Amino acid sequence: MPANFLAALRREPSGGTPVWFMRQAGRYQAEYREIRAKHSLLEICALPDVCTEVTLLPVRQLGVDAAILFSDITVPLLAIGIDLRIEENVGPIIAEPFAGAKDLVRLRDLAPSEDEPFLEATVRQIVKELGPTPLIGFAGGPFTLASYLVEGGPSRQYLKVKGLMWQDPALFRRLLERLADLTFKHLAAQAAAGAAALQIFDSWVGSLTPHDFALHVLPVMQDLFARLRALGVPTIYFGVDTAGILPLMAKAGADALGVDWRIDLDAAWRLAGTRHAIQGNLDPALLLGPWSEVEGGVRRVLAAAGSRPGHIFNLGHGVLPKTSPEILRRVVDLVHEARAET
Amino acid sequence: MPANFLAALRREPSGGTPVWFMRQAGRYQAEYREIRAKHSLLEICALPDVCTEVTLLPVRQLGVDAAILFSDITVPLLAIGIDLRIEENVGPIIAEPFAGAKDLVRLRDLAPSEDEPFLEATVRQIVKELGPTPLIGFAGGPFTLASYLVEGGPSRQYLKVKGLMWQDPALFRRLLERLADLTFKHLAAQAAAGAAALQIFDSWVGSLTPHDFALHVLPVMQDLFARLRALGVPTIYFGVDTAGILPLMAKAGADALGVDWRIDLDAAWRLAGTRHAIQGNLDPALLLGPWSEVEGGVRRVLAAAGSRPGHIFNLGHGVLPKTSPEILRRVVDLVHEARAET
Repeated sequence: MPANFLAALRREPSGGTPVWFMRQAGRYQAEYREIRAKHSLLEICALPDVCTEVTLLPVRQLGVDAAILFSDITVPLLAIGIDLRIEENVGPIIAEPFAGAKDLVRLRDLAPSEDEPFLEATVRQIVKELGPTPLIGFAGGPFTLASYLVEGGPSRQYLKVKGLMWQDPALFRRLLERLADLTFKHLAAQAAAGAAALQIFDSWVGSLTPHDFALHVLPVMQDLFARLRALGVPTIYFGVDTAGILPLMAKAGADALGVDWRIDLDAAWRLAGTRHAIQGNLDPALLLGPWSEVEGGVRRVLAAAGSRPGHIFNLGHGVLPKTSPEILRRVVDLVHEARAET
Repeated sequence: MPANFLAALRREPSGGTPVWFMRQAGRYQAEYREIRAKHSLLEICALPDVCTEVTLLPVRQLGVDAAILFSDITVPLLAIGIDLRIEENVGPIIAEPFAGAKDLVRLRDLAPSEDEPFLEATVRQIVKELGPTPLIGFAGGPFTLASYLVEGGPSRQYLKVKGLMWQDPALFRRLLERLADLTFKHLAAQAAAGAAALQIFDSWVGSLTPHDFALHVLPVMQDLFARLRALGVPTIYFGVDTAGILPLMAKAGADALGVDWRIDLDAAWRLAGTRHAIQGNLDPALLLGPWSEVEGGVRRVLAAAGSRPGHIFNLGHGVLPKTSPEILRRVVDLVHEARAET
């Protein structure tokens, strides 16, 4: 019997520690690489049969306790007509970056059933094939989406998006609110089609000072999570480099916080407070190391979680392309066995 | 009268908050760009007259309370014969990356007076021209140096250096110990020539889990700071993304910890404990924003420090190339005026 991921999200007894991995479907899998030889990443997202196959691969191969919709944070941006492409080994490249108030009109309302009709079809098909294993819906956070739109692509220092935030905070707020509405509708469609939980990947919010996060981003996230709460589906809020803003992220209103490996899980939990489940936080690089080290790392994460209900085992960021599927399978087994031992 | 940087390092009353900036000599200055049109970065480091001019530029232009030797963390590596170059807008590129025990022999003992004779000459000249303003000596931390040596250059994920750490921890330890010895001798030569304080730039230690930092890096840092303590010169230990490892960095034995902007200064101080001075922590990107925002940011950092002795105002990382010198000058004035107001 698998550990109960949804119970853990509610901080209820879950029959042990549930485990899944961010980017658990991806280039580390030979089967995925074969599919990618035929389809681009964004094509896979828009083809229900192929997306279902990719989403289910890790569930069948690894025995994880949850599936996550195979997708990309740019999918809803594409759906409303933003011109972008995913460059291999780089990331999303925006043809015309967001440059001012005149560009707000390009962020029109998303109508999932018309703009991304594949989404509901895909989620329904995945949920049907998954059986009892829950599916996690997928979307990017407004700040992270804004960073791509304003920078025009991936960034190291986020100078342009921070510059907009400081030069014109009212416009920045309107941009985030437009993106939060996009995120909400994209996630609501997934929940309506059967997604049992929703994760917001706000990967780059950790580049902000606590003050800027609290002033410019947190109110938007609070509104977003309040709207999501009405869907009746538990939520996870994830970012990297967030050790300094965890107490603020805890005010956003998600049921669980995802944390990276740069902070001990118990320290993160103290900062997040007891009303949250915690997801994490093995260093994904460790999976490239010898098994003895991997095992030690997994056991340390479990020990840091202690016997508290509400721990969901995961990595601190996505699975790296050079990771061995066999190592991931052993990690799943170890997390499940450790449960049996306690 | 300038604020007393050295008194602040000792957490003694310092006549207000001293201020300097990491990379306060650099491309944001027209005078520096003129000099760089004639000399490479590493040439400047090796030419006492030019290095003195560059090191003193920000002291004269900005009124900062300390100078820092203009240098690069690769200088002592070059001095012992490691083949490397600095690539513009990229960073250090190592011709033959460290690949195993056979490469330890390439990390021979540094004899500063023979291997880098310009170093003592430069420091003496700077100290003489500075008058009462203290000079901070400069070196890279062993882990950060190891990351360049093993990765072969800058890295986003540090997979190779972490891989070595997990695959062969004994060799990794010997590598760090060799680099710590190099760092010690490089800093001791600067102290002997008149440097009044020493900062170790261990920029990338924040990529490690607290466990890995404590097990693989901290013991080496404790030995290094114990050796430095015997020089009788106060020390500063700096890294970015360190919010999760600050309580461990506080055990290294430095007098001050430098922190980035991703954590509130008062939270950082609580994690570091009261026996440390704290240096930081304005987001360098904020200096590209409007003055009203800069002013607010500076005042928030000062407010977070409160009236505690031992705060040294700085940025959370180096000055960005697009920064206006005028803005930096106004920040220095604001920090000094805020002192007068209290």
